Amino acid sequence: MTYCAGILVQDGLVMIADTRTNAGLDDISTFRKLHIFSWPGDRSFGLATAGNLSITQSVISFLHEGLPHPETGEIETLRNATTMFRAAQLVGRCIRHVREIDGPALDEAGVKFEMSMLFGGQIKGQPMRLFMIYGAGNFIECGIDAPFLQIGEHKYGKPILDRAVTFKTHLYDALKVGLISMDSTMRSNLGVGLPIDLLVMRRDAEDLELNRRIEAGEPYFHDLRERWSAALRAAHMAIPRPPYGPSSP
Amino acid sequence: MTYCAGILVQDGLVMIADTRTNAGLDDISTFRKLHIFSWPGDRSFGLATAGNLSITQSVISFLHEGLPHPETGEIETLRNATTMFRAAQLVGRCIRHVREIDGPALDEAGVKFEMSMLFGGQIKGQPMRLFMIYGAGNFIECGIDAPFLQIGEHKYGKPILDRAVTFKTHLYDALKVGLISMDSTMRSNLGVGLPIDLLVMRRDAEDLELNRRIEAGEPYFHDLRERWSAALRAAHMAIPRPPYGPSSP
Repeated sequence: MTYCAGILVQDGLVMIADTRTNAGLDDISTFRKLHIFSWPGDRSFGLATAGNLSITQSVISFLHEGLPHPETGEIETLRNATTMFRAAQLVGRCIRHVREIDGPALDEAGVKFEMSMLFGGQIKGQPMRLFMIYGAGNFIECGIDAPFLQIGEHKYGKPILDRAVTFKTHLYDALKVGLISMDSTMRSNLGVGLPIDLLVMRRDAEDLELNRRIEAGEPYFHDLRERWSAALRAAHMAIPRPPYGPSSP
Repeated sequence: MTYCAGILVQDGLVMIADTRTNAGLDDISTFRKLHIFSWPGDRSFGLATAGNLSITQSVISFLHEGLPHPETGEIETLRNATTMFRAAQLVGRCIRHVREIDGPALDEAGVKFEMSMLFGGQIKGQPMRLFMIYGAGNFIECGIDAPFLQIGEHKYGKPILDRAVTFKTHLYDALKVGLISMDSTMRSNLGVGLPIDLLVMRRDAEDLELNRRIEAGEPYFHDLRERWSAALRAAHMAIPRPPYGPSSP
């Protein structure tokens, strides 16, 4: 499994991804799923991946090599895409290209073409944007009403995002809530695990403000997990017991 | 969708179920999914259902009518089942019976035979037990290490159960945590909604201590939702922001 979340708030973008992959429960490895494409001062992008690792890694390789534009024949890359929308389309085209190459053999082998991606970032002078891109290469964009997107094992970590994140949330509070969301997911699904990769991009910086890996035992994340557990315990214990009983209406 | 949880603690059993059913997003209704079979002082059972409503309702009808025992030919019902294990087997046989009758036509119509049930209760002088019964009529039993089982849309509400419920949890704290779990699910999935049905059975009472429906606006549940929201907000706000930044290691 995998869990990745992208949060787009007023001050910038947070992306978080775990690193656990498994082919069955008995074959667990660590692979980076949060990829960075950055030309500081001009443009920076984060790309988080979920699903079949052979597919998503091939997509990443095509993004590095570029694809010929279907009409002009010129090699298109994230470096020369003119807008975030075009850049997201390029990611989608790379996905479709991998499907053309590998799809038939995967079909024959009974392997589904399953994958999804979060793609966020900013090109100088243009808006910062965050997209969720599907296996067919189509995509949706994050809006300000629900300023986050998730891929992979998303349900365990969604309630806290639903409750705690708005467009006006402080950038590092968004990171904090993203880490709480990751913690909830890790506790309920062993297929999601440490280390965690994260990035923070401040709006209009066109650069990464933070690009970090949280390993097991990292003091802040350890403390966050302990505090959150203790606070949840205190929270449910502070709620009175139901007044219902044999004699209640 | 549906969300049902059963919690089996030292002092007894809690079962909770929502009542929303939907055939598509534009056809939403209220149906009871928590069914009670009770002969006070001798035996009481709760049965919560998820999945295709035509299947689960047919199973309930067969449970009321009874099925001939495959060897003796005698009509077996929940009233005369000799143990909780036999009673759970009877539920499984009713499921298989419905599959025999309706399965081929459902297959032809492309409708999957999807359903699951929670079945809990106690027969006088025997242990209280809680089972999760699958669409094939097989089942698993709740143990003391993870003293709860869930069916339906279970992921949103699992983290709080994972954290807050142990076998020694007070019976009405278990009910409270079950309601928090239901609240988390309702917030994240519109397919799960009020009213909520619940029951509480105290161990060795062989009767229902509580059999109640929570409607919209019910004061305790309303207050629980408000308090839980406020406590979560306070909890994540009390955690310090990540100390990471451009200059951090």
